[in-house]
Amino acid sequence: MSKGLTKRGDDYSSWYNELVKKADLAEHSAVKGCMVIKPYGFAIWEKMQQELDRMFKLTGHVNAYFPIFVPKSLFEAEEKNAAGFAKECAVVTHYRLKTNPDIPAKLMVDEQAKLEEELEVTPTSEAVIWNTYKNWIQSYRDLPLLINQWANVVRWEMRTRLFLRTAEFLWQEGHTAHATRQEAIEETEQMLDIYARFVENFLAIPVVRGIKTENERFAGAEETYCIEALMQDGKALQAGTSHFLGQNFAKAFDVKYLNKENKQEWVWGTSWGVSTRLMGALIMSHSDDEGLVLPPKLAPIQVVMIPIYKGEEQLAAIKEVLQPIRQALLEKNIAVKLDDRDTYRPGFKFAEWELKGVPVRIALGHRDLENKTIEVVRRDTKEKQVVPLENIVSHIEDLLEDIQVQIFQKAKQYQEAMITQVDTFEAFKEILVQKGGFVSAHWDGTSETEEKIKEATKATIRCIPLNNPKEEGKCVFSGKPSQQRVLFAVAY
Amino acid sequence: MSKGLTKRGDDYSSWYNELVKKADLAEHSAVKGCMVIKPYGFAIWEKMQQELDRMFKLTGHVNAYFPIFVPKSLFEAEEKNAAGFAKECAVVTHYRLKTNPDIPAKLMVDEQAKLEEELEVTPTSEAVIWNTYKNWIQSYRDLPLLINQWANVVRWEMRTRLFLRTAEFLWQEGHTAHATRQEAIEETEQMLDIYARFVENFLAIPVVRGIKTENERFAGAEETYCIEALMQDGKALQAGTSHFLGQNFAKAFDVKYLNKENKQEWVWGTSWGVSTRLMGALIMSHSDDEGLVLPPKLAPIQVVMIPIYKGEEQLAAIKEVLQPIRQALLEKNIAVKLDDRDTYRPGFKFAEWELKGVPVRIALGHRDLENKTIEVVRRDTKEKQVVPLENIVSHIEDLLEDIQVQIFQKAKQYQEAMITQVDTFEAFKEILVQKGGFVSAHWDGTSETEEKIKEATKATIRCIPLNNPKEEGKCVFSGKPSQQRVLFAVAY
Repeated sequence: MSKGLTKRGDDYSSWYNELVKKADLAEHSAVKGCMVIKPYGFAIWEKMQQELDRMFKLTGHVNAYFPIFVPKSLFEAEEKNAAGFAKECAVVTHYRLKTNPDIPAKLMVDEQAKLEEELEVTPTSEAVIWNTYKNWIQSYRDLPLLINQWANVVRWEMRTRLFLRTAEFLWQEGHTAHATRQEAIEETEQMLDIYARFVENFLAIPVVRGIKTENERFAGAEETYCIEALMQDGKALQAGTSHFLGQNFAKAFDVKYLNKENKQEWVWGTSWGVSTRLMGALIMSHSDDEGLVLPPKLAPIQVVMIPIYKGEEQLAAIKEVLQPIRQALLEKNIAVKLDDRDTYRPGFKFAEWELKGVPVRIALGHRDLENKTIEVVRRDTKEKQVVPLENIVSHIEDLLEDIQVQIFQKAKQYQEAMITQVDTFEAFKEILVQKGGFVSAHWDGTSETEEKIKEATKATIRCIPLNNPKEEGKCVFSGKPSQQRVLFAVAY
Repeated sequence: MSKGLTKRGDDYSSWYNELVKKADLAEHSAVKGCMVIKPYGFAIWEKMQQELDRMFKLTGHVNAYFPIFVPKSLFEAEEKNAAGFAKECAVVTHYRLKTNPDIPAKLMVDEQAKLEEELEVTPTSEAVIWNTYKNWIQSYRDLPLLINQWANVVRWEMRTRLFLRTAEFLWQEGHTAHATRQEAIEETEQMLDIYARFVENFLAIPVVRGIKTENERFAGAEETYCIEALMQDGKALQAGTSHFLGQNFAKAFDVKYLNKENKQEWVWGTSWGVSTRLMGALIMSHSDDEGLVLPPKLAPIQVVMIPIYKGEEQLAAIKEVLQPIRQALLEKNIAVKLDDRDTYRPGFKFAEWELKGVPVRIALGHRDLENKTIEVVRRDTKEKQVVPLENIVSHIEDLLEDIQVQIFQKAKQYQEAMITQVDTFEAFKEILVQKGGFVSAHWDGTSETEEKIKEATKATIRCIPLNNPKEEGKCVFSGKPSQQRVLFAVAY
């Protein structure tokens, strides 16, 4: 197949857009700003869901489901949260269509069916959930409440990009309630840790763990923890956030509990989420000019088998060898596909599975049969090996593990090389333009400076890294004193 | 605990509403008509999802995700479908809120942000999906397309009941495309078979498989297949539907393929779905005046262990015996909960887990320890046994299997006893009032008669059973000739 894929070096943005479509991950829908996640892309998202869900449950969380709509009066209750999301709300105003009397077979909004109070398609579920928690929490015995939901949310966006920024996206949102401030902070940190381990171990993307500045904080949170990843074009991407909500939502929705001393206290809250945006991070972190590179733990197809043959007889002989290998791989829970389509040539198939990022490709031809060998190609490095047939299963097992590790290591080395310390604003600007990546610089701690830097360079503070060493210095922009460096970057 | 649950015989409807709330399955939300599915209820739904998803994938289906919105112009394209759902559509007209200049901290719809074309929150995704399939299908090589999605949909309802009829509900919807009429019909039948096997083997609810009359057919389908279940109050409940769409959506959305003879043909379609309504069927089929009765295959907690003790020392000795049993059960993938809360007495716990339908309860007290026995109570029959401690694990395994079978058998006997053949309209009406259940009667095949019977009795034709024996007779209402009996019932 002819891939016709733009090269990253020529136009990274086009490369991404084309790759998402050509690799059958997602496409734009007829609804402006909303995407269709295609089966191959969805299979990757399902693997992410399964692992995250497992990690959530192991830490005592349970799933539930809350409505997709929020009435305006509830949405308003936590004012900062409402103000932060008001501009992105899809609003339901009517509940019925009727036939258009002027145009046969066409419909129109039935003005008789106007809602008394508009409903927002919820951009994030704190309001609905805390309004519910009010009835679920009476005493310390009801705490902690550790609930997650897998859902779709809508945040209206004018400029959308598949997976990275869409009006509707899929996510999980955890919402927990606790008796003490300390316990809620520990929960916030635990969930950040789960996100970081998941993204590093499964998506093979190294992340910086940190805390957001006030400017970048979730609307309604006291503190937002985040994991930040770096894409191959040197731009940062926020991969997950975990918010310590303090008592903000408890106060807005009057959620109190009776403590062991029989006194009423406000409840402490957290919320945390990751979304289909992770798909964008996955694609941009590892893939190359030939197409996707998927870490084995998330690849819907981990191994593809391609027979090289002339005529039915050769094909039969080759398949007789491939079938037991396929069976042995399946028994080890390795997802294997035998591509025996007779409508395409091997070269076309090689290119197609390369584009789709299948980690390991094995090809078996007539001559291999004679030599009792098989050709193995790994997707990440494109390295080709000829392996004795008898060792193939254990060879593939080892190879998949090695690919998972190597992909992460490569990304890790890149990330480390792309964190640059600067001490002047000239150097700051130059690094952003010439090199990109994270710029580690002193900052005076004010939102004002942060905004001026953003205006001048488009870079924002991605985070104040956790366990950041204290270091006396001067703000790279204002020259005012600073106690620590923070990470700036241009971000998705 | 005091259950305070209305008895089925006194008021079946109140019993249901109370049970759903008291057993922590679901509750009404602040959004009119939308429900909150609570963790215990959601855990049951998750088990349903897992099994159905497994069955879909085993038959070659893959998951994807399509937008929650449908633009009005697309929605209109298949006219019957549009007409059928127009009256239940939540309509998004604006995409932004703004602060209300007259009331501080309040929001209002921003009239500047009016959509050029309204969006419907999709009541069913045929329109969006067939509009997408148009680009995915060119040749016979692209067929069949076997796609499912797990999603939330909205159908505006004025009178709602938890799980049974809610404005928003969760479901799966399969949408497949085929080269031939025959293949599409086979798919429709295959999916009905999957639903029937799932509902019978997992929910333990016997179903009648049948075909809907034109009146009850899915808007836009050529034929609707269904499974119908019978609740304990004698009312029927449609548990799942599988639609043969013919070429209706292909024609509405211009979806053609090039066949092997190089000719353009319209594609054939199916769609099929089950929803959180199954939760309602599950609750109403098996539960009793003491609370839920859950089939073991869907119970989030299959076994609850309750220690009976006085003082810490006894508790420690009892837990020492219970812990290895718990571990052994877990290793056999049996979901077990040790309820060692010291804030509640055993009697309270017994009542609570009975209310929540845990299939097996085991209790261990001081005297049991001396006798090396343990008390086992099954939820369905409330039968109590004293079992030697050494046999407890295999005893529980057998018991869970037996409960699954017995629950189904009991429901099956009830269903069979509640299918009554009648040959006069007097008997028809009397059976409906006195006994309820399915009434098997001759019908002249016209919608007119069907509607008149509905007006007179509230009963509708639930289905024409598959493999229905041909039998000459006269319509119970019109006296006109009829070739077969059909099943009538008052339905949820």
